[in-house]
Amino acid sequence: MRAHIITIGNELLIGQVIDSNSAWLGENLTSLGISVEKIISIPDETQVIVDQLETSTQEADFVLISGGLGPTKDDITKTSIAHFLGVDMVFNQDVYDSIVRYLKKLDRPVPDIIHRHAEFPEGTIFLQNKVGSAPGMVFQKNGALIISVPGVPYEMRSIMENEGFSLISAKNNSIHIIQKTILTIGEFEARLSERLNDVVEALPPYFSIAFLPNLNRVRVRLTAKGRDREKLEREMSDQVEKIKAVLGQQVFGFGKSSIEESIGKQLLQKHLTLSTAESCTGGYIAHLITSVPGSSRYFKGSIVAYSNEVKQKMLNVKTQTLADHGAVSEETVVEMVKGVVAATRTDIGISISGIAGPDGGSPEKPVGTIWMACGNERKIVTKKLQLGKDRLKNIEASAIHALDLLRLFIMDEYE
Amino acid sequence: MRAHIITIGNELLIGQVIDSNSAWLGENLTSLGISVEKIISIPDETQVIVDQLETSTQEADFVLISGGLGPTKDDITKTSIAHFLGVDMVFNQDVYDSIVRYLKKLDRPVPDIIHRHAEFPEGTIFLQNKVGSAPGMVFQKNGALIISVPGVPYEMRSIMENEGFSLISAKNNSIHIIQKTILTIGEFEARLSERLNDVVEALPPYFSIAFLPNLNRVRVRLTAKGRDREKLEREMSDQVEKIKAVLGQQVFGFGKSSIEESIGKQLLQKHLTLSTAESCTGGYIAHLITSVPGSSRYFKGSIVAYSNEVKQKMLNVKTQTLADHGAVSEETVVEMVKGVVAATRTDIGISISGIAGPDGGSPEKPVGTIWMACGNERKIVTKKLQLGKDRLKNIEASAIHALDLLRLFIMDEYE
Repeated sequence: MRAHIITIGNELLIGQVIDSNSAWLGENLTSLGISVEKIISIPDETQVIVDQLETSTQEADFVLISGGLGPTKDDITKTSIAHFLGVDMVFNQDVYDSIVRYLKKLDRPVPDIIHRHAEFPEGTIFLQNKVGSAPGMVFQKNGALIISVPGVPYEMRSIMENEGFSLISAKNNSIHIIQKTILTIGEFEARLSERLNDVVEALPPYFSIAFLPNLNRVRVRLTAKGRDREKLEREMSDQVEKIKAVLGQQVFGFGKSSIEESIGKQLLQKHLTLSTAESCTGGYIAHLITSVPGSSRYFKGSIVAYSNEVKQKMLNVKTQTLADHGAVSEETVVEMVKGVVAATRTDIGISISGIAGPDGGSPEKPVGTIWMACGNERKIVTKKLQLGKDRLKNIEASAIHALDLLRLFIMDEYE
Repeated sequence: MRAHIITIGNELLIGQVIDSNSAWLGENLTSLGISVEKIISIPDETQVIVDQLETSTQEADFVLISGGLGPTKDDITKTSIAHFLGVDMVFNQDVYDSIVRYLKKLDRPVPDIIHRHAEFPEGTIFLQNKVGSAPGMVFQKNGALIISVPGVPYEMRSIMENEGFSLISAKNNSIHIIQKTILTIGEFEARLSERLNDVVEALPPYFSIAFLPNLNRVRVRLTAKGRDREKLEREMSDQVEKIKAVLGQQVFGFGKSSIEESIGKQLLQKHLTLSTAESCTGGYIAHLITSVPGSSRYFKGSIVAYSNEVKQKMLNVKTQTLADHGAVSEETVVEMVKGVVAATRTDIGISISGIAGPDGGSPEKPVGTIWMACGNERKIVTKKLQLGKDRLKNIEASAIHALDLLRLFIMDEYE
């Protein structure tokens, strides 16, 4: 069965908001075996919405609409749907009461505008919104099931997870799509693809492979379609094993897991604790590590030493080292890692210091020069990167490289 | 003039990648006075690509295509374009040589696959890619200008900024679209909209307004369209002043600036230095602050005190305080902020401690309980939040609240 995702809102077209809802819906629909054939973003304009609903309900079995359900005047999805269905807007007392209850619970005033917020196309089936005021809505036309949800990501997700996806599953039948994603780090897409050439050539015809690069990491995604789920799963495992055998240490995980999760698992398993000493990444490595639930079991803390004074005082970096080699140097990151391991009493530390840019470079150390170290009380390894001039990209990319340095250090130093 | 943006790649439809390119392109096209009427994401399937190109070139004056230009087998945009134009694929020696030069500069091997990477639809006009191996391409059909760029965001941006947008400007004429976005913090969308009701009712008919909420912030966007740019700009300033007058302190900036940039400006202007002591946000506040270029002039560092031991040792939080009130308490965050101001010798500090979740709550302190403090040597203000159960959302939202607490503290305490 096929789905279209329609996201509504001028803010999407003028680029003020990035559409993350479609990716989330796409992923969930795919895992239900539904093929997402098109994602369309359109403005808050009745005629455009009506035309798109007409096209999409004819081309797809499921049409998911997100956005344009707020209480303000620019949100016109509901009236456009009424227009498309040829029905009137009617006030719904139950929804009105539940919105009022919701606002009271939050200790918020009830603005007049809420009355309009409780009007819906006649015949609407409601999906409860437990985390916001606009409920989800279900309709049918042209043989398609139409589900409309708010554009606020956590409201959309909550409604879909509670009731939306069950509705869709109930209507879907039995073509299976299986996917497995192999996560790699440290090699370019073209080179990976070349190394995997033999495996790719030998894939069954109902298998496909894709390479998805992002900051020093490439996801290798295998997809298989067919009716016999068990057979597909068996073959998928075989193919994944073949790819793992070729890529070896470069594989750091599978599916949606991140390098920071993979490291977290290693640290937990080996009963190791970690700290970071960050200059140019300004806390971003600590943020990545602590994004993982349960990270407090292995992560003790970080010293973000943005100024030299903090590097000296809190990390014991020597004045002489800073004077002789500068803050961005192998010598400094080595002292930083020693300092943070001592100060936080952890097994392992990572340190990083660089020129994130866009300014602050010199001929010998241009913007994008990054030094990093990883080590314990016995051994310290270091690495230098030469990146570009984009500050955020430098922060993100160098953090990922530092995590890879840590990953390899754990692999090499701890059984 | 009208534009369609087409993003190509199965990874978009199955939700493995969030389409951030469209927002960036949409924003830039809008600022050139071009109306982006539709954003469409479609799979790597020749027939779907050809059909969409046919529709889009008939409905729009500019068609921007991103994605599907990589060297691997799943990337078929180029051959699909050739099919759509009815031309052959031809090998281009110049492009081949420049790709080889690019790879050699990076000290990377030249895989065989690069030969295929240098084949293009006959008659392609090239746009140079200074940061990657796949060049941009320009075509014309059905009266529309078609620009195809790689899906890798920084390559796409570089090509469009260097040559792509100039091409588009040259073809565009003189309808002006002006936008101004007023950034607010601390109030819900519905309540803001109600307060602005009189201003909105009195807007000229060629003005529109939109409210875009995101984690405790709402962007209020005004759009005006017309032929007389100067008149539009005058009227826009007037409307912005009216809105500022109604919203007062809740306005923290304009356009694309962030709360962290706005704070950075304040700190610089007032010659103040800042540090943070973070528990539940794990370095995220420091990351936001240091994302701003030049932040090293006012930000000295952060102590990410994830464990109680680090809170005691590095921030001087008393054992007794932790025992009596717990790590998530007003008493602890007050000691944390004192500790970080003393340790880093800054004018102002922020501290935060909470239960980010998804686990770790108790009946008295459920997941989502967050305490924060902001202060200097003379005065400390505190705030408590009760958020939900989503770890990442709690980290992000509480960081934004902490920055707002800081913003108001600077306003109140320093002239």
